[in-house]
Amino acid sequence: MELDLSQFYRVMAPRTTIIITTVNLKGEINAAPFSFTMPVSVNPPLLAVASVPTHHTYHNLQETGEFVVNLPGEEILEELWITSESFPEGVNELEKAGLTGKDSQIVRAPGIKECVAQLECKVVSDQECGDHQLVVGEVVRVTARDDSLQEGLLAVENTKPVLHLGGKDFVVGDHRKRVI
Amino acid sequence: MELDLSQFYRVMAPRTTIIITTVNLKGEINAAPFSFTMPVSVNPPLLAVASVPTHHTYHNLQETGEFVVNLPGEEILEELWITSESFPEGVNELEKAGLTGKDSQIVRAPGIKECVAQLECKVVSDQECGDHQLVVGEVVRVTARDDSLQEGLLAVENTKPVLHLGGKDFVVGDHRKRVI
Repeated sequence: MELDLSQFYRVMAPRTTIIITTVNLKGEINAAPFSFTMPVSVNPPLLAVASVPTHHTYHNLQETGEFVVNLPGEEILEELWITSESFPEGVNELEKAGLTGKDSQIVRAPGIKECVAQLECKVVSDQECGDHQLVVGEVVRVTARDDSLQEGLLAVENTKPVLHLGGKDFVVGDHRKRVI
Repeated sequence: MELDLSQFYRVMAPRTTIIITTVNLKGEINAAPFSFTMPVSVNPPLLAVASVPTHHTYHNLQETGEFVVNLPGEEILEELWITSESFPEGVNELEKAGLTGKDSQIVRAPGIKECVAQLECKVVSDQECGDHQLVVGEVVRVTARDDSLQEGLLAVENTKPVLHLGGKDFVVGDHRKRVI
């Protein structure tokens, strides 16, 4: 069947979900989930994320040029959802969600302690792209839980990565299959 | 623990996997899987994909400015893997994998009949980004299997989307969870 063009991202799913933490120039922390994201380059390590231009995260990216990409697991799905709610600028979504900041080493924004991994990033480019801004960041430091990798790959049975379908519906990506 | 920077994409996983079909100027068909991909904008409908510049898919994108993004399900995982193998330019990976071309309406490249959905796309921008090319395409037509959507979201129990972990390891994203 033919679908409306605006539904294309519904079939391009489920999508790796991240929580981005940022600070503004006053040092106030913001956290919000995104699923329009992907790695772009391995060496140098670059990733991309698309944000609506009115988003507090995007304002902070513009102000500071820094952010942290946090990879959540199933056990904090409810907390992730709380960070997606619309709070006034300056409200710390980590506190609202009962999540804990984890000091970063290179960027000012904290990571999230309860997440599987934290990627400290610096913005390298930012361009208008339709109704979103396409931001590319360079990964400058990576930390992860000790049980997160197995033979160099994400240990999904331990980390239970969260993937977004749409609205309140997610997929837990722990159902592994190997090509014969 | 601290990870090597080059491992960042291993934790940014599992990733929505697509098969891109293209043709070169002679009309020869190419098909190959990608997992560095994301939606970028809803209106206009734009998506991004990162490709190494030496890839046949990228050559064809440059030559024709057109491609089809196909969403595979678990039942064609072995076929997907065959399309990832390195064949000489001009070899039709669809035939090698036993997959069937499906005529497109707006672009010249065919879709893949055995896939859950087919997004016909036209290249709108292309920029060097580290060791990959960051290509943005506008979605100009979307077709999908009748059972692919349920209440507007991907019906993962029917479509069994394939997500890439690395190497021969994939995750089948059919384990749904709703935020309370």
